[in-house]
Amino acid sequence: MLKSSNLNLVYENECLDDLQLNSLFLIQKQSGFKFGIDAVLLSSIVKAKSEDTVFDLCTGTGVIPILLSAKIRAKNYVAIEIDEDMADMAHRSVVFNSLQDRIAVKCMDVKKIAQGQVFDANIADVITVNPPYFKRGSSILNEDSKKYIARHEVCLSLEELFENVEYLLKDRGNLYMIHRPDRLVDIFELGRKYKLEPKWIQFVYPKRGKPANLVLLRFTKGGNPELKFEKNLYVYDEFGNYTEDIDRIYNRT
Amino acid sequence: MLKSSNLNLVYENECLDDLQLNSLFLIQKQSGFKFGIDAVLLSSIVKAKSEDTVFDLCTGTGVIPILLSAKIRAKNYVAIEIDEDMADMAHRSVVFNSLQDRIAVKCMDVKKIAQGQVFDANIADVITVNPPYFKRGSSILNEDSKKYIARHEVCLSLEELFENVEYLLKDRGNLYMIHRPDRLVDIFELGRKYKLEPKWIQFVYPKRGKPANLVLLRFTKGGNPELKFEKNLYVYDEFGNYTEDIDRIYNRT
Repeated sequence: MLKSSNLNLVYENECLDDLQLNSLFLIQKQSGFKFGIDAVLLSSIVKAKSEDTVFDLCTGTGVIPILLSAKIRAKNYVAIEIDEDMADMAHRSVVFNSLQDRIAVKCMDVKKIAQGQVFDANIADVITVNPPYFKRGSSILNEDSKKYIARHEVCLSLEELFENVEYLLKDRGNLYMIHRPDRLVDIFELGRKYKLEPKWIQFVYPKRGKPANLVLLRFTKGGNPELKFEKNLYVYDEFGNYTEDIDRIYNRT
Repeated sequence: MLKSSNLNLVYENECLDDLQLNSLFLIQKQSGFKFGIDAVLLSSIVKAKSEDTVFDLCTGTGVIPILLSAKIRAKNYVAIEIDEDMADMAHRSVVFNSLQDRIAVKCMDVKKIAQGQVFDANIADVITVNPPYFKRGSSILNEDSKKYIARHEVCLSLEELFENVEYLLKDRGNLYMIHRPDRLVDIFELGRKYKLEPKWIQFVYPKRGKPANLVLLRFTKGGNPELKFEKNLYVYDEFGNYTEDIDRIYNRT
């Protein structure tokens, strides 16, 4: 299935990973931050109409818009990434998958979106984000600075994220986010502060009896206060295999 | 075990319910609002030292402090209830159980606590509350006005509750609350607003596969932001029996 003419898009120290979805591939560093189940889970909850413009913030390798291009009807995606090398790699993945007419990769700092020089306000129908999970200064310092930026709020705090989402998102537009449950108070408080009302929540557990380690959220800009709890999602069953729910998410196209 | 001399404390249209804990009894209306599993769950999570003063707001029949008197070391309780008849009934339950040296029932409006005419500020080590669950105007109107007050924020909004808890609670004191998950965004936002940091949370599910219908919370006044998730609590197993966790809570003394 691979077009050999496209293989020159994959650089040394990179690898080409099969997304197992519509023959899509993703270029990733051989060693470095790789997409995980969080990207797959996040992409599985997004809904959008064909004419919608979908922004993915902190896109990294571009895995979210590339997955979404095969999962939902929306045709136009803008993927924002602060790191030049990552943005370039994401762009090459887009070209590799012949998605350059649908996905535009933009290298810029998310917290500069609301300054208005690049994007007008209220233009996104849908925003997705798999943001850095840990607060500045918390958690163990990761030697690899790209990993560190991806995992920590080095370049973007949760508040800066919400502030820029509020700018970019249309009224009644939806923000989809995956984050960690221990940040839930901050997430709710800041969501409200920036008119992003939490409307839907699902906790993700590694297995039954363990604490939730991820939380999936949908916010509506200007939405009415009413939070719907989705049934819990368990990743592994008691035998260490993916649960039926996870199998379904991975096989869904 | 019943002292017949005390039976005159139980009025017509009332009944005496065995709390199945240290021979404690509770006077309740034969028809009307009766305490449920929420009171038992709430009382099961409270921790206090022997010298602590524990306030129970919206005490209703007084079930929470009466249960707590047998479950935790704290010796001093103040139970606040706005409804005169309910407060009188709670007081008679206190007398019936010979707890009048430990539990003082005060008939007053919780939202007047912070006015400072009755209680000084920062005097409670621990506060418990099983507040009205529904917003004003929401849910179906209940014909029985006492039931309606107990279930709705007719007399006390969530914000008024937090405001008065902030006044009453000592710095680093704990607030224990049971509420409904669909109010969680309001709860977190208002908690933060009134310096009551959510520190611990447990979702309660009627059974596996159903959405959570209750949430147990501990807030610390002036606490650092860090929310700990307790493992989920399921009330019934797949056969319709109480789970082991619930059995343990009901039998714990």
